[in-house]
Amino acid sequence: MNIVVQKFGGTSVANLECQKQVMKKVLRPYREGNKVVVVLSAMAGETNRLLTLAKEWSETPDPAEVDSLVSTGEQVSCALFTMLLKQQGVRARSVLGFQAPIHTDCSYGKARIVDIDTSQLEHMLKENDVLVVAGFQGCDEQRRITTLGRGGSDTSAVALAAALNADVCEIYTDVPGVFTTDPNICHEAKKLDKISYDEMLEMASMGAKVLQIRSVEFAKKYNVDVHVRSTFDDQEGTLVTQEDIDMEAVLVSGIAYDRDQARVTLVHVRDEPGISAAIFVPLAEKRILVDMIIQNPSKNGRTDMTFTVPRADLEQTLKVLESLKYEIGYEELLYAENVSKISIIGVGMRNHSGVASRAFKTLSDENINILMISTSEIKVTCLIEDKYTELAVRTLHKAFELEEGGVKPEVS
Amino acid sequence: MNIVVQKFGGTSVANLECQKQVMKKVLRPYREGNKVVVVLSAMAGETNRLLTLAKEWSETPDPAEVDSLVSTGEQVSCALFTMLLKQQGVRARSVLGFQAPIHTDCSYGKARIVDIDTSQLEHMLKENDVLVVAGFQGCDEQRRITTLGRGGSDTSAVALAAALNADVCEIYTDVPGVFTTDPNICHEAKKLDKISYDEMLEMASMGAKVLQIRSVEFAKKYNVDVHVRSTFDDQEGTLVTQEDIDMEAVLVSGIAYDRDQARVTLVHVRDEPGISAAIFVPLAEKRILVDMIIQNPSKNGRTDMTFTVPRADLEQTLKVLESLKYEIGYEELLYAENVSKISIIGVGMRNHSGVASRAFKTLSDENINILMISTSEIKVTCLIEDKYTELAVRTLHKAFELEEGGVKPEVS
Repeated sequence: MNIVVQKFGGTSVANLECQKQVMKKVLRPYREGNKVVVVLSAMAGETNRLLTLAKEWSETPDPAEVDSLVSTGEQVSCALFTMLLKQQGVRARSVLGFQAPIHTDCSYGKARIVDIDTSQLEHMLKENDVLVVAGFQGCDEQRRITTLGRGGSDTSAVALAAALNADVCEIYTDVPGVFTTDPNICHEAKKLDKISYDEMLEMASMGAKVLQIRSVEFAKKYNVDVHVRSTFDDQEGTLVTQEDIDMEAVLVSGIAYDRDQARVTLVHVRDEPGISAAIFVPLAEKRILVDMIIQNPSKNGRTDMTFTVPRADLEQTLKVLESLKYEIGYEELLYAENVSKISIIGVGMRNHSGVASRAFKTLSDENINILMISTSEIKVTCLIEDKYTELAVRTLHKAFELEEGGVKPEVS
Repeated sequence: MNIVVQKFGGTSVANLECQKQVMKKVLRPYREGNKVVVVLSAMAGETNRLLTLAKEWSETPDPAEVDSLVSTGEQVSCALFTMLLKQQGVRARSVLGFQAPIHTDCSYGKARIVDIDTSQLEHMLKENDVLVVAGFQGCDEQRRITTLGRGGSDTSAVALAAALNADVCEIYTDVPGVFTTDPNICHEAKKLDKISYDEMLEMASMGAKVLQIRSVEFAKKYNVDVHVRSTFDDQEGTLVTQEDIDMEAVLVSGIAYDRDQARVTLVHVRDEPGISAAIFVPLAEKRILVDMIIQNPSKNGRTDMTFTVPRADLEQTLKVLESLKYEIGYEELLYAENVSKISIIGVGMRNHSGVASRAFKTLSDENINILMISTSEIKVTCLIEDKYTELAVRTLHKAFELEEGGVKPEVS
């Protein structure tokens, strides 16, 4: 039994016309003799409509009830889409989270999939050729409805593909695939045929919002090939898959950026054991994601501590730090909102040097000042002034020859 | 553990303001220390909105998918209402059909409750003080969602009251209770304090649309006291309960009418064995509900056959009969749309005579011609010309002294 998993987002199922287009995509593998598991999101706008209702009813709506409420969005789109299929004579049925069942923990609103019991699904696949599964939802041990958080339908699709040992997991979206960088600011951006899970994770977290991060983590963990492709044409998209030798033959796969950052500096902090914890534990408790952290070399028992936070959390970050002024013992609190994070990503970096230096030189040639630097195994990130973002992306894209398939590492 | 079941319909939960009113009703028994099981319908208009979508998607939408679709209506109202309760600090949760679980057969769209497993509900009632149960829905053996048909929330409430052995089942509606007749056409109509299940069944089927018929059948079968009362005030309503001696002490409890009737006459039908079947089996196959049937005494091997059908089915009835003209062998097919059915209902009739004759005399005194008569143990029904409906209801109401509590049977 060959199984194809296909996932369609909210704009793809927004109305009858859209759903008829989706049906064509579903009927192709069906007519080729495959069993198809279609994962759908709620019709565009529906989840927000329901969340607005919840907010109207209660300032702090009960999370379990919010999940029961918003899960109706996928229930509606799945029932309607199945009607279309049945009208065409396809043996099909809708499958809700509790019917699959997709077991999750009970973290309502951001539940994690614990287990998919496939015996039911396999039985349903015997009696049907297409299963229309509600994305984004599951149920906990008590049979209460849970949701997986925004973009959770991607995770549903990958998890189902893993559990059912599907041949492929196709994620249909409104872009043709994953690009070397954002085509909106760099016209030379090129669609990648393939990208490794790790690279995709770095790209996604940096704002290349094609796939939900958690779905990529899931795909990596269970080794599911994910084919990201466009709802609007039949072109091949990008395969997100295991790293292979081919991939390492290219030094850099893509350039990502993130403009939603702010930089905070604590000047002349007392440099003593426990000081980092004193600063970052209170921020973590407020669920503020601190990213790049730099500590200057100490001088006279004092140091400067600089780090970045999401711009939306800046105000709260400053508030927390001000309240800790005497505990931490800093002299001044500085911040900047006009900063941007540029990342050069590629698994080729694992075995080859020279990427960082080439990046620094490229930026320097354009007189772009680097404010902070951080590196990982497959990534080099520079914080720069926001106004240089487009220029930096374009020149780095060119420097690493990404429009021509990417610069090859020199034979060392 | 004292349990109160309360059911609220679609207009009662239509918006936030309405739901706040409902909450007051729920908090009363809660504050008195009872556990409360609240059964809710979908917010007014929602079920129709969803059914319209289904019709747009498919001319013949799959019934199982329709049930999954429309059941979201109750899911939404229950989640929202529970948010309100939790905001007040009440230990509460929503309970969907599959969570209760309310087991039904798999007749999608008109499922019948097979069984309510109370072990889950009892457990939930230990952890919560109020359960907000989605009316109208259940699930079949395959865990697919089913719905009980229009007005099914009444049945849900009565079934839950029976299963949980509740102290009372309160059905909140937009009228103060069950009346001796329709107050819209007879200002002397009086609210009944009590009515027996059998009388209620006759009243309901005759158009006193306060309670869904099936819920009354359920209440009778499991002997559940149903208190029909108004959402809009705190007055006592009408108790629908077992027949008792008090009730028999009154000859007539109410006058019902049904204007949605049509009369059909087959003139000079061949009077031979099997002729009734030849007429009525084809009508039953088209699901046309034939009600009063009168066959004239035979003359020269021919007879007239007269019966009533719902006016909406008249056209189809005539079509069926015309197609059977030679099979049945009638000479003429007559019909009348301007007819109305008036019923006098009361368990007191079981043991006392004189009701029919008093009814006939009353109508005759007003020069109202009786077109057809049928009687049962607790009911006398007359078909009359539609234009006399109001007059007939008012004079019969007066003749049986219903505004003064009903005429007492003479001691025989």
